[in-house]
Formats: sequence, structure tokens, C-alpha cells
Amino acid sequence: MDQERLLRELSEFLSIPSVSTMSAHDADVRRAAEWVAAELRRLGCQEVEFLGSDVHPVVWGVGPEVPGAPTLLIYGHYDVQPPDPLREWVSPPFEPTVRGGRIFARGAVDDKGQVFALLKAVEACGTPPVNLRFLLEGEEEYGSAVLFDLLRKQPQRTAADAVLVADMAYIAPGWPAVYNVLRGICYAEIHVRTARSDMHSGEYGGAAPNAHEALVRLLGRLKTEDGKIHVPGLYEAVRRPSRQELAAWKKLPFKEREFLKQRVGGKALTGLARYSVLERLWALPTFEIHGIVGGFTGEGAKTVIPAEATAKVSLRLVPDQKLSRVERQFATAVRKHTPKYADVSVKFLHGADPAVVKLDHPVFGILDRAFREVVGRGVVPVRAGGTIPIVPALGQRGAPVVLTGIGLPDDGLHAPNEKLDLQQLWDGIEVFKRFYELFGAEGRQ
Amino acid sequence: MDQERLLRELSEFLSIPSVSTMSAHDADVRRAAEWVAAELRRLGCQEVEFLGSDVHPVVWGVGPEVPGAPTLLIYGHYDVQPPDPLREWVSPPFEPTVRGGRIFARGAVDDKGQVFALLKAVEACGTPPVNLRFLLEGEEEYGSAVLFDLLRKQPQRTAADAVLVADMAYIAPGWPAVYNVLRGICYAEIHVRTARSDMHSGEYGGAAPNAHEALVRLLGRLKTEDGKIHVPGLYEAVRRPSRQELAAWKKLPFKEREFLKQRVGGKALTGLARYSVLERLWALPTFEIHGIVGGFTGEGAKTVIPAEATAKVSLRLVPDQKLSRVERQFATAVRKHTPKYADVSVKFLHGADPAVVKLDHPVFGILDRAFREVVGRGVVPVRAGGTIPIVPALGQRGAPVVLTGIGLPDDGLHAPNEKLDLQQLWDGIEVFKRFYELFGAEGRQ
Repeated sequence: MDQERLLRELSEFLSIPSVSTMSAHDADVRRAAEWVAAELRRLGCQEVEFLGSDVHPVVWGVGPEVPGAPTLLIYGHYDVQPPDPLREWVSPPFEPTVRGGRIFARGAVDDKGQVFALLKAVEACGTPPVNLRFLLEGEEEYGSAVLFDLLRKQPQRTAADAVLVADMAYIAPGWPAVYNVLRGICYAEIHVRTARSDMHSGEYGGAAPNAHEALVRLLGRLKTEDGKIHVPGLYEAVRRPSRQELAAWKKLPFKEREFLKQRVGGKALTGLARYSVLERLWALPTFEIHGIVGGFTGEGAKTVIPAEATAKVSLRLVPDQKLSRVERQFATAVRKHTPKYADVSVKFLHGADPAVVKLDHPVFGILDRAFREVVGRGVVPVRAGGTIPIVPALGQRGAPVVLTGIGLPDDGLHAPNEKLDLQQLWDGIEVFKRFYELFGAEGRQ
Repeated sequence: MDQERLLRELSEFLSIPSVSTMSAHDADVRRAAEWVAAELRRLGCQEVEFLGSDVHPVVWGVGPEVPGAPTLLIYGHYDVQPPDPLREWVSPPFEPTVRGGRIFARGAVDDKGQVFALLKAVEACGTPPVNLRFLLEGEEEYGSAVLFDLLRKQPQRTAADAVLVADMAYIAPGWPAVYNVLRGICYAEIHVRTARSDMHSGEYGGAAPNAHEALVRLLGRLKTEDGKIHVPGLYEAVRRPSRQELAAWKKLPFKEREFLKQRVGGKALTGLARYSVLERLWALPTFEIHGIVGGFTGEGAKTVIPAEATAKVSLRLVPDQKLSRVERQFATAVRKHTPKYADVSVKFLHGADPAVVKLDHPVFGILDRAFREVVGRGVVPVRAGGTIPIVPALGQRGAPVVLTGIGLPDDGLHAPNEKLDLQQLWDGIEVFKRFYELFGAEGRQ
């Protein structure tokens, strides 16, 4: 592999700030789509199209026809999370920088770096012995609305013998993984209003209702101190993992203390203490506050009583919770817990049901072999705490969805200083190349 | 009065965005200082100096000598609060606009408009029969550090027969007021850290400590639902108003229901329900949240578990609380109420002791007469919920500090659409002119 050229090309891709959640970056998202389309054309795709949106298009590609060979649908996303807090980045998020054998940039691992590996593995094959289809979207970090709509109208796009999704990570260094459950998500904004407009805390303080105080009380009530989410009915649908699954998790290279010290870097973990940390991360719903908007947050001091405040929050969902039901339960709980002096409204920004994948198709054996041959260890079946909303739709025509990836647990996705280990990248290209070859030979059931 | 010219000049003054709490506006603060200095020179001050700071200078002026006449020190400030939330302004905060007999702009009443009235009253006198001194500062909204320092080093600047401070309001339309107590303030930032850096809520949610959750719990504990501040010892020093004072407040033109509906515009008032609203506003300490920094507050959705969060908060202090003691009490309470999994620190940005003014000096009778002659009603003695930190230092040489003003209760100071009633301005200029005249004749005790 010409690593120098590959690094140059990856840096080019990563330097496009394709932040799908911020309309100011619409042109950048489009630019990233064009970068991907050009790559697909270079790889010999006759058919390369932008589907569903001019702003955040789904890039659709059809590789050279290989008569009699199975069809593999490759999914990935070229959009990225916002980069803030900017000041915590050692090098700027959209100026990819290599330090200590890792490339640092927003999207390095989630998911541009992995999309890059999938594409460069095709290149490395020369002529892959498999019919390739590409669905590379630009809105994964914003709920995948465009792709959802596309796949509802054109479900035949998912007709394939298998779907490969490389948006995940190893469970530990040296331990590649395949994922059988992804949590769902319910993302909401809670808006509270207590007065007509912001007030002077000298003039009004002591008697006027403070929107931040109302919001703080509400948020405090939505989860108990010990980590139980205080939304009536929320846990009813939660199915505990089987005894076998829980036993298998105990054998994984995962240490709670190491998770706290190495990865979180905090004083203590939180959540429901009677469950293991992996069960909390993979098999229980969550409620998290992401940020609070309103009042005065600038430099210095402003003595204002805020009249309105908005919390950005989300819940993660697990089997067998349903997004539509959770939305209803959550909206009811919010109304119930809001102090009487405040008006409250809940706006759901996006969501996804949890996804369950059965690992009984031969493609999972092929994935295992590809990793085993290249990195010396096969894939261990695990769950993921995160969400890829589109996964159920990708499998709607019955193709098994292979959820794997080349990231490492400390890559810092969605966080400052997101990175991709270069050795993981080089290995990943080899693994995917081998996967294409094996799947081409044996992938048709 | 040439109202057209005066309005033009006032607009010029108000259009300078002299926001002292934001370093980006340093040059604007300086520009406002220069505007004030030019006015003082036009009014015949031989001595006009910038003291204490090049950035936020105190403008010092000495009016023409009037042998044998008493000396009046005039205090005001030419800096203003930040204008956000910008989108709530009907017209831009630094483009003064007259609508319905009122001028709308940041600083219209607090305090540029009132400084303007004081200066134009001098102009209206021609040659005022009083020795005037001016101390016009540029950091009132940021704790008055420069002026504090100046008056500590040069207390003789406050040598006068009386000090006039016009930074206040009528108690109701048609009811001018004189103030005998100002609350103090203790402004702090509470910073919470729970992890090394922001984390992905999918990967970490359920077990990783969330800084916003820690902060929300802490803030919720610092005040009970019914409005009692949960800081041990805080209420010990609080002296209740005398029975006479409480009885006098009952006769004021103030209706709690009207306060809620007309001024707050909310569903209900908050705070300690067993005290009257005026007692809550004037004679009890407060704890208010002004804003919460950290996590994701941009457009759209970002699924991050914040590693740090900062709350901007303040307490208002009442007689006989001491700032230094409250700071210690508050820091102790914050440490005590912070969840164990979080590191917390408290930074005090600025503060002031409460101020008490005895109304037994003849100057208060003069003020009463000036208002009575011009607007038909004398001043009613009241308290203020707000703070002017420098007041105790202004009275340090024994001069009585006259706290009054020409604002109205609904002027919206520190809020969007701050305004000054033009009739209040024209009346105010006449009142101050009459006050200078009466004080020149009778002000020497």
C-alpha cells in the first residue's frame, strides 16, 4: 500500500467540515458527497448518483457487474458531528494531523475514516469478485431523514445478499467485534418559559420565576440520584440479556476500573449500580443532558433572570422498547415533573428504534475469517450502546446486516481530538479486501 | 428645551455599545468615556481627567468654582449590560429608536439616559450655583473595580456636601422615590468536571458521569422548591425591616397581581410565600441561576455527555449580611451539595455589600421639594432590590448619598427592549436643574 498517498487522500476527505446538524455547513456536506462520488467513479462504478436531497444527498454507487457473484451493499456516512468544544482540540478538527501513529480530525473514525477504508479495500482488490452497491449517506448524525425517506420509497435499493456497515469499533485493542444489538435513541429539546422576557435579578430576584431554575428542577426529577430514569412505564418493555449473553460479557477484555480511569478519566461511574457496567452501557435505557440553552452564557457577568431555557436531552432505547411509545411516555413525564409556574413543551428532533441482528448467517463466519487471517483474531459478538438509526431499514429486504468496524474504544468519537489509529486503518483495508474476496466466493447462501 | 437636539445627542451616546463585561467592546467603552468627557468640557469643567484605567476609565470632572457654595458630587456610569438575547429586541440595542414617546436602546435608562439627564440639567442651569464634581465610571456592570481602587487610594475625591446618584427608578408612574437600602451581590461561577473530555452518549451513556447532571443536582439543592436558599448560616445575619417600614410598604402603589401580570408576564411568582413580594424583592437574599455553559448548545442535535459544565449564578445580599462571609458560606454549601462523582470549584467574579442610607440629612428634603415642584409629588422612601456596588465608597467621607432616578418600573433594564420614557427624561432634566439650584442655596449643613 502506498500509505503516503492514502494518508494524503484521507486528509483531504477529513478536512471537509461536513457537519450535517448545522445548516451553515450545508455546502461542506455537499462537498464531501462530491468527494465520495469521485472516489466511486475512480473505483469503476458505472452508476453514481445523488439521491434524495441536494443538500445532504445519499451517494449511490453500483460497482462493475460480476455475473453469478453475490451482491454486497456497503453502507457508511460522510457527515460528521459538530466539533465543539473547539478549545479542547490539540490540533484543529478539520486540519487532520498525524501524531504518534494516529490521525486526529473530526470524522477520523466516525465515519469518514471507515468509509475510506471500505473504498480503499475495493481499490486494493483491483477487480473485486463481488457485485458492490454503495449507500453512503450525509445525515447519519442528524437522524438519517433523507435515507429513511429514500428506502421507504425505494426498498429495492437494499436488495443484496448482505449489508456491510463499518461504523463500529474493536471491543479492545486486538479484539475485533461484530455487533448483535444497537441501542435506539430519542432526542428531544425541552423548552421552558416562565416570564415574558428576561428580567433584572436585582429588580425581580426573590419573587420572579427563573426558567433555569424550573428546568433544573425538572431535569433533576427525570432521573433519580442512583440512575433510575423517572419516566413512568419506561422500563416495562426492557428485555434483560439472556444468561448466556451476560456470561459471555464477563469474559470480554473489559475492566470497569480501567473503563473509569483510562477512558472516562473521572472519579466514579454513575448509573444503576446493581447492573454491571456493560449491561448499563448496552442493555439499559439512558437519559442524558447534552446542553442547556438560554440566559446569559457569555464572558463575564450578567445578572439576568432567564425567561426561557431549553435543554437538549436524549434517551437511548434497548430491546424491546419502541421509539413511538417512549416519546409519549417521556412527554408525559416532562409535563408531570415541570414546576407549576412554568410552561413547558417538548420537541422531538430525531429518533430510532433499537436494532437487533441475528448472527446466524454465513456472512458472519466470513467476517470472522477475514479478521482472523489479517489480524490474528476473529470477531467477538457484542452489543453497542450507540445507535445507527438506519440499520433496521437496511435489513428490510432480509439481507443480514454486518455491523463491525476498525475503530478503537478510545477514539473519542463525538468528542474533541477524535482519532483513528493508522495501524487499524492499514489492517482494516486488508480485512475488508479479504472480506470482499471471501464473500465473493462464498457469500451467496 | 430643544428636545430635538437633546434626542439627537442622547441617541449618539446610546449608540456606543459600551459593554464593560465583554473585552471585545473595550474600544467602545473608551469611546463612551470620551463622549462623556467632551460633554463635561462643554459644560465648563476646567478639569476633566481619565482616572484609573485606559480601558474603562473613571471620568472625573470639576465644574466652575462657585465660592461659598456647597459641593455636590455627581455619580453615574456610562457602561451598559450586554444586549443578548439579541433576537428579542424589536429594534437593535445600539440603534436608539423612538416609539410611542419612549426611546429604546441598551443603556436608555441604565444608566446612560440618566447620566444624560444629569448633564443636561447642568446645561439648563446656565451657571449652576453649586460646586459640581463628576465621577462617571465605566465598569458599574462589571463590579466597579477601577473606581473601587481609585476611591481607596484617593478617598478625597468623595469630599462633598452630598453625593447624587441617579441610577434608579420611580416606584410607579407619577411616584418618584428615594432609596434607603440597596441589596448587595455575590456573583459566582460554579464549575463542575466529571470526566477528562466530552463523551459519546451511545458509547458511554448509562455509566459515565454527566457534568450537566451533576450541576443540575447541585443547583437544585442550593434552593428548596419553596424558595429557601439552602446555604447554611446564610439567613443568620438577615435583619427584618422594622414594623414601620413594612407598614409603609403596604401603602405603596404596588399590587402583587399586577406585578405578576404586567411586569413578569408569567403564571405565578416564586420565593418564600410567607413574606410579601416587596419583602422578597427588597429585604431577603436571593439565589438566581443566570446561565449554564458547556456541552452542546448549538443548532440541531449532538449526543455528547458533557465532561464539564459551568453555572453563572448570583446571590443578592441584604442588611446585615457581609459579602466576605456569604462567599465563604456559599463555597462551603457548593462543595457539600456537589455529587461525589464530580470535581467542583467556585470562582467569585464580583460582589458588593448591601448599602444602607439614613435619610436624615436636609438634602433629602431638597430632593423632595425639587420633585414636588416639577412633577407634583415628592419622593417616597423605598428600598431597591438591585445593587450599586460603589455606593458605600461614595459615602465614605460622610457625605449623604442621594439615591434616586427618573426610570419607570417597566423600563426593562438588563433585558431586551430597555427603554426610557421621554416625558420622564424631560421632567428629569427639570428636576435635577431645580435640585442643583435648591442645593446651591441651602445644601451646606
